[in-house]
This record gives sequence, C-alpha cells and structure tokens, in this order.
Amino acid sequence: MSKYGYMGVLRAQPGKRDELAGILLEAAGGLQNYAGCLLYVVTKDEKDEDAVRVWEIWESKEEHDNSLKLPATRELITKAMPLLNGMPEGTALEVLGGKGSGF
Amino acid sequence: MSKYGYMGVLRAQPGKRDELAGILLEAAGGLQNYAGCLLYVVTKDEKDEDAVRVWEIWESKEEHDNSLKLPATRELITKAMPLLNGMPEGTALEVLGGKGSGF
Repeated sequence: MSKYGYMGVLRAQPGKRDELAGILLEAAGGLQNYAGCLLYVVTKDEKDEDAVRVWEIWESKEEHDNSLKLPATRELITKAMPLLNGMPEGTALEVLGGKGSGF
Repeated sequence: MSKYGYMGVLRAQPGKRDELAGILLEAAGGLQNYAGCLLYVVTKDEKDEDAVRVWEIWESKEEHDNSLKLPATRELITKAMPLLNGMPEGTALEVLGGKGSGF
C-alpha cells in the first residue's frame, strides 16, 4: 500500500519568503480537517533564502488535485501568486510509509 | 518555534531501489520510539526510478546527528552502502509547521 506524495518548491520575490510561507501555513491549517490530506508541512530551505519547500502526502493524486479546486485553496493561491518569482516546481512521489507518514 | 528538517535523496544501483527503500523503512521503524525524531518518511521518486527520497523532522540538528551514532542506525547504513550508486545528497530545512509536522 502506498500513497501519493508531492514535494514542491516555491521561490519568493526577494524579501517576501516569510510572507509566502505564512500563506502556505494558512493552507496547511485549512487542510487540518481534510481527510484526504495526511501531511502538509511547510519549510524554509536553509541554503536558498528565497525558497519555501512543502512536503505533502495525500490518500491519492485525485484527492490532491481536488483540493486545488477548494474555494479556500483558490483564494490562497491568488494571495500567493504576486509573491512568487517564477512558477512553483515539484516532484511526484510514491510514499511507502515511515514515522509520521499517517499510514 | 521551528524544528530541524532534512530531505535526502539516495540513488540505488539499477534494480536495487526497492531493497534500499526497505532498509530505510526499517530505519523509520527503529525511530518510532526515538522522541527526538518527529517524522521519517520514505518515498520513491516517480520520475527517477533509482531515487529514494526521505523526509525527516527532528527536534534539533543535534538530535539528527546523534541518531546517526545509534548502533541500529550504523548497522542499517552498512547494509545500505553496497546498494548505493554515489553518495546520498540532502538539503537542510527550517521546518515551520503544518499538518502532520508533529508540532
């Protein structure tokens, strides 16, 4: 049994990383009761001072994609866009398990 | 308040990824009761068929470094080394929080 994982990197405009990270933490808060999301962790890259890195685990890719259609998510994406320096990038993963994986 | 995060990528010899991932899952199991480790998730990269990616959250960098000295960890590293194609790489992160972050 495995789950869908995604690790994204979002680069902020110079000096805007904390504000961007704050929006992503807000997104994480909004997903607390979203059963299809098992993990949504927000981090700052210690070398790249503009990069926010997010780790996500979802029951399925479908659950991940559906979450992007939620009004709250759309609103946060709109808030975040002006802070970005280029498009977000990401890697899809097959999550095998481990401590804190949620399954 | 933030925690120490680490995301590593380990490339296996061709055809050895599942065996390598199994060893890392064993490591994750061994950390279940290690209080200083909040998260240790093992994943397979969906594009790079030799890559295992691990997400880790620790109370501190010191806790992370100390865990590498545990006999069980040393043993697993010894088991994993022959399966690797090159040295593991990784990125240190400041973990800000989020769903499943453990704090």
